[in-house]
Amino acid sequence: MEDTTMAAPVETDFSPLLAPKSIAVIGASDNPAKLSGRPIAYMKRFGYNGQIYPVNPTREVVQGLPAYADIRDVEGEVDVAVIVSPAGLVLDAVRACVDKGVRFALITASGFAEANADGAALEDELRQLIAGSGLRLIGPNCLGMVGIRDAAVATFASLFEADIPLRSGAVAFVSQSGAFGSFMLGDLQASAVGISHYFNTGNELDVTVGEVLAGLVADADIRTLLAYFEGVSRGEHLLDVARAAHRGNKAIVAVKSGRSEAGARAASSHTASMTGDDKVFDQLMREVGVIRVRGQEQLLDAAQVFDAGRTPRGRRLTVLSMSGGGAVMAADTASEVGLEVAPWEPEWQAKLAARIPAFASPRNPVDLTGSMITDPSLLRTALATALEHPGTDMIVIVLGNADGFADPVIEAVSELYETTDRPIVFSWTGGTGAPRRRLRELGIPCFTDPTRAVDALGALTDHALRRDLPRPERPAGIDRQAARSVIDAVRADGRRSLDEAEATALVAAYGIPTAMSAIAGSAAEAATAAAALGGPVVVKLLSNKIAHKSDVGGVRLGLSTPEEITNAAAEVLEVGRRHGETDPRVLVQQMASGDVELIIGAQVDEVFGPIVVVGLGGVFVEVLADTRIASAPTDVAHVEHLLGTLQGAALLRGVRGRPAVDIAAAAAAAERLSWLIADLREEIQEIDINPVLVRESGATAVDALIVLR
Amino acid sequence: MEDTTMAAPVETDFSPLLAPKSIAVIGASDNPAKLSGRPIAYMKRFGYNGQIYPVNPTREVVQGLPAYADIRDVEGEVDVAVIVSPAGLVLDAVRACVDKGVRFALITASGFAEANADGAALEDELRQLIAGSGLRLIGPNCLGMVGIRDAAVATFASLFEADIPLRSGAVAFVSQSGAFGSFMLGDLQASAVGISHYFNTGNELDVTVGEVLAGLVADADIRTLLAYFEGVSRGEHLLDVARAAHRGNKAIVAVKSGRSEAGARAASSHTASMTGDDKVFDQLMREVGVIRVRGQEQLLDAAQVFDAGRTPRGRRLTVLSMSGGGAVMAADTASEVGLEVAPWEPEWQAKLAARIPAFASPRNPVDLTGSMITDPSLLRTALATALEHPGTDMIVIVLGNADGFADPVIEAVSELYETTDRPIVFSWTGGTGAPRRRLRELGIPCFTDPTRAVDALGALTDHALRRDLPRPERPAGIDRQAARSVIDAVRADGRRSLDEAEATALVAAYGIPTAMSAIAGSAAEAATAAAALGGPVVVKLLSNKIAHKSDVGGVRLGLSTPEEITNAAAEVLEVGRRHGETDPRVLVQQMASGDVELIIGAQVDEVFGPIVVVGLGGVFVEVLADTRIASAPTDVAHVEHLLGTLQGAALLRGVRGRPAVDIAAAAAAAERLSWLIADLREEIQEIDINPVLVRESGATAVDALIVLR
Repeated sequence: MEDTTMAAPVETDFSPLLAPKSIAVIGASDNPAKLSGRPIAYMKRFGYNGQIYPVNPTREVVQGLPAYADIRDVEGEVDVAVIVSPAGLVLDAVRACVDKGVRFALITASGFAEANADGAALEDELRQLIAGSGLRLIGPNCLGMVGIRDAAVATFASLFEADIPLRSGAVAFVSQSGAFGSFMLGDLQASAVGISHYFNTGNELDVTVGEVLAGLVADADIRTLLAYFEGVSRGEHLLDVARAAHRGNKAIVAVKSGRSEAGARAASSHTASMTGDDKVFDQLMREVGVIRVRGQEQLLDAAQVFDAGRTPRGRRLTVLSMSGGGAVMAADTASEVGLEVAPWEPEWQAKLAARIPAFASPRNPVDLTGSMITDPSLLRTALATALEHPGTDMIVIVLGNADGFADPVIEAVSELYETTDRPIVFSWTGGTGAPRRRLRELGIPCFTDPTRAVDALGALTDHALRRDLPRPERPAGIDRQAARSVIDAVRADGRRSLDEAEATALVAAYGIPTAMSAIAGSAAEAATAAAALGGPVVVKLLSNKIAHKSDVGGVRLGLSTPEEITNAAAEVLEVGRRHGETDPRVLVQQMASGDVELIIGAQVDEVFGPIVVVGLGGVFVEVLADTRIASAPTDVAHVEHLLGTLQGAALLRGVRGRPAVDIAAAAAAAERLSWLIADLREEIQEIDINPVLVRESGATAVDALIVLR
Repeated sequence: MEDTTMAAPVETDFSPLLAPKSIAVIGASDNPAKLSGRPIAYMKRFGYNGQIYPVNPTREVVQGLPAYADIRDVEGEVDVAVIVSPAGLVLDAVRACVDKGVRFALITASGFAEANADGAALEDELRQLIAGSGLRLIGPNCLGMVGIRDAAVATFASLFEADIPLRSGAVAFVSQSGAFGSFMLGDLQASAVGISHYFNTGNELDVTVGEVLAGLVADADIRTLLAYFEGVSRGEHLLDVARAAHRGNKAIVAVKSGRSEAGARAASSHTASMTGDDKVFDQLMREVGVIRVRGQEQLLDAAQVFDAGRTPRGRRLTVLSMSGGGAVMAADTASEVGLEVAPWEPEWQAKLAARIPAFASPRNPVDLTGSMITDPSLLRTALATALEHPGTDMIVIVLGNADGFADPVIEAVSELYETTDRPIVFSWTGGTGAPRRRLRELGIPCFTDPTRAVDALGALTDHALRRDLPRPERPAGIDRQAARSVIDAVRADGRRSLDEAEATALVAAYGIPTAMSAIAGSAAEAATAAAALGGPVVVKLLSNKIAHKSDVGGVRLGLSTPEEITNAAAEVLEVGRRHGETDPRVLVQQMASGDVELIIGAQVDEVFGPIVVVGLGGVFVEVLADTRIASAPTDVAHVEHLLGTLQGAALLRGVRGRPAVDIAAAAAAAERLSWLIADLREEIQEIDINPVLVRESGATAVDALIVLR
């Protein structure tokens, strides 16, 4: 592995933020009801276990604690400063934090880049102020510090006005949006999901969601990370963080909004962030094992099921239901999310049938009918049998209403729950919600709808059985010097577009098979070159003045005889002259054939850096935009996997009697191209190899369009 | 319009069931706690306003009411009998109901077709017993009668054990699954959705979900119909019911499960129903305006938003949010469901900006920040402005938590709510739920998540702006007699497959343009025929012994000279002899050309009757199964619409410089084929016209495969 994928995701030690020993509140009010009074009031009420330093130049005591006129006056070290002053006072407050050697400052005020140009200028000043200082800033336009693990609730969020219990746990949540995060946090606590920290990064003047995630990934107590993104400002860093989480067996579940045009517009006016290309985000997050969900309820559901801390070993789901309809819906959803609800093997059906009444169906879904709720021994027996059944990787129990019958059912299940490490979840629809709360407090996930329950299990399973990360290793046969020479020559010529011969040479330097070719300046030279190449040839005008050469007669295919070649070359050279080439030349290239046409491209994404794009040619790319994206460099196995997920993948495997083609060869070409873009990211803006002809054995790049930066 | 689409959906008068003046409970127990005692207990408790007749041969009084030994002894008329007796006593009870002239009997017992063969036989007996009697049966394996409008709660459902308020309204719900329906019913009542009736059809021995829907559509009080299907037994009837609802401006919102293989397997073991082809169901429901949703929460959400009784006039959504993140998610979801969240016109932004503080964004989404909740005048002002703004068709208000601030916000909105007929919904996340309940009680829909709120608005808008139903009118130029003659000749020959010439003649009889052709029995005849047709021709073996003629050399394309034609015909005739044709013949057909290849097919679906299928040829059908389905007969406008929704539709409109093709001509061919299958549904099993070549002007059927029943 090269160091391109090994960048350490943690560039700052976030432990002073995640486990602060001391928190200063700059601008703290004595009045606990005021927004600026709440952080200290909350920390006192919930019992923060570190030092609290109110900073307020006009009072000696704030909410019963000795106050400081200036943070520089504090004797001890300050891990975290929460600045609740208005925007106009923030610059001075941050300067004081720098002087004091504070590690993290959170700025709650709005009125910065999200508001106007003056606010953006203020952000620039802050950025300059902290450069090299060791102080990291969170916000502005954020809710402050919510460290539930240590009761470090130094925030003004109204959620904590109510005397809710702080439920600490192994789930952390980072949100770019403050209010949304606070809604979620309320729901998470109500769902009995234990939260270690909640951060809201607001304008991301300095620290991004990704950086906070990096800190959280490094914290041993935290197992599940929830994230809400609108824009991603440091995509490559985020990928590295996600890779670290993948290797550390921690789940990241993310909502990324701004995925539509309307949403992106709304996001950019909200936190002044660019949302980037959603397809790139989506596919790269998949690559690094991030589970992406659609909205807040899905995030909440995922939090519940991941928080239970159980890992399915396979995709086989057993459904135990009091409702046939609920069972069918669970089975439908399972199919959609890639879980299997298959009838149990006959011997296991027989074993179960012998233990339950005849009116119940022992197949899977196991329909226990309404008796399941009136006779809890029925569910106990069925669940015990499912836990014996080796083909059951996880279980969903579907029921509803019937609050009055809940206690014995919950008791029966919770006893068995402790005897297994397999995931068991409930869908308990309707009723008062009391059974749901009780189950969640016992650590057993419970949902309101079988669809949501199985969706959540699907996410859990996708994470448990996630693919390994690509392990890019530089392939043999890359001649970086040759590639560099091609680029230098083009630069020396004052150009950004490579001609056919140059593009072929650059691609060939990375070991990508190309159709053999030669350059000719006359019809006679073309015929000679063709004879040397052998077989039928193509004659193409070499020109960087004309983008679509075939549209103007600059490409001639399938030429065999010397006469055909001579005539074609003469005509194509004439086309070049007509289009302003004073000294036109042609590329004479062997005709390549293939059973399937692929396109393989590469570029440097403005958010995520070098990427490689693969897809099928023809209508698949033109009409369906059916392409897949990998971060570069990548490996052959990952590209093969991506090719297999194309809508048109059947063409690669052979359809209607056509042969299966050499997917490995195509993937190897994409792998090599991924190294090319990774090595030359400073030079190359875009490469499109179109087509790559793929045969039963082998793949050949026929035409490449390369533009330098 | 022909009578094929005019079948009256109501075949039975359901008003005695929907507004029963008298209900007998056969097998009623005196003990109100027993399942068989509950129906009378519930009716008494909720105050059913009609006559209750307990039938119990062992008691003179049941729960304080005079009991009858036999329903035949009841003096007055009995609209509805709820039979709560066990399966073994049901036959006698139904016989008594027939004798008494009862209009509807609901059978709650299980142990019928869903259990075993004896149960299925019992269902057959019951079916014979009621034939022609005027008695209609609901169930078996159902929950009984839940007529909330009249407090006719003659069910054993445990839901009513709790002393819940009955909230009557304009929403009715029909479910094939009992327990699922009962979960939903509980949730609906908890969501303050007023329900007129809930029926659960169970095994559908007689009355189907679709028939109950027909009755409900005919009931003037009911505006919204919710349905849960597993299988559909009378598809054409269901289509007619949905068409009646469409014309009557009533919404049908449906969950159909068993859409996956695992789900279908579970459904068939649950209610012994066949789920049918999900794609056919999905597309035909779309055609007739049924809103299909995924699961119970979506059904619940749709019920809320439809129950509010407001109709958007367009797709433009204004978002008023206290959370920038919530606003972005609302905008994203809007794009997904086809709603528009566009910035307001500059003058309207200016108008709003003049009325709200500078920190709020007036663009749309309108971000009112956290101040929205502490200063209710902000929301009042923004909402009032949105209601003045002509480009706002509907509004979603996004907020969360902050229960303590809810009252003034709700008051401000509810005042304005009364001044407008535009849909306004809330997304109120988190908190205790009290604000949600309060809003719902005021008739203002309120959801827990912006995604769900906007999903529901999308469904409402899709229904409000639904396409007109197809208006099939028989096109001129159909020669039914000629078509009949072709079929008679094939039947006379003892065959089911038509040869090329017969298939072409049948298709041509319906006025579908075909490539001109002639039949030849020798090479010389073929040459003569080709000369008469003119232009290049195709020679195809006429054979119904060989399915894929081109695979065995039975098709030769692009023949121009007499020599080519003679040689090809001789060779093809020889192929025929080798494959067992003693007297082989060939079809000589003009070469047709086209810019796009379509396939147009027709068949008689086992559930929904005659249908026509359209799609693009090549990879679109082979790899992507990219086809659309219409009920037959249909009209040109509907087929054009369907073609426009194909994944590959861009090919029809012209892509990358290719011409747009004659979509109307292609649609006209499909329209004619739809009449063919509708007219000849008793004769034809399947037709595939592949390809139909579509040009810039015109479309030609080149090859048709027709199999008779």
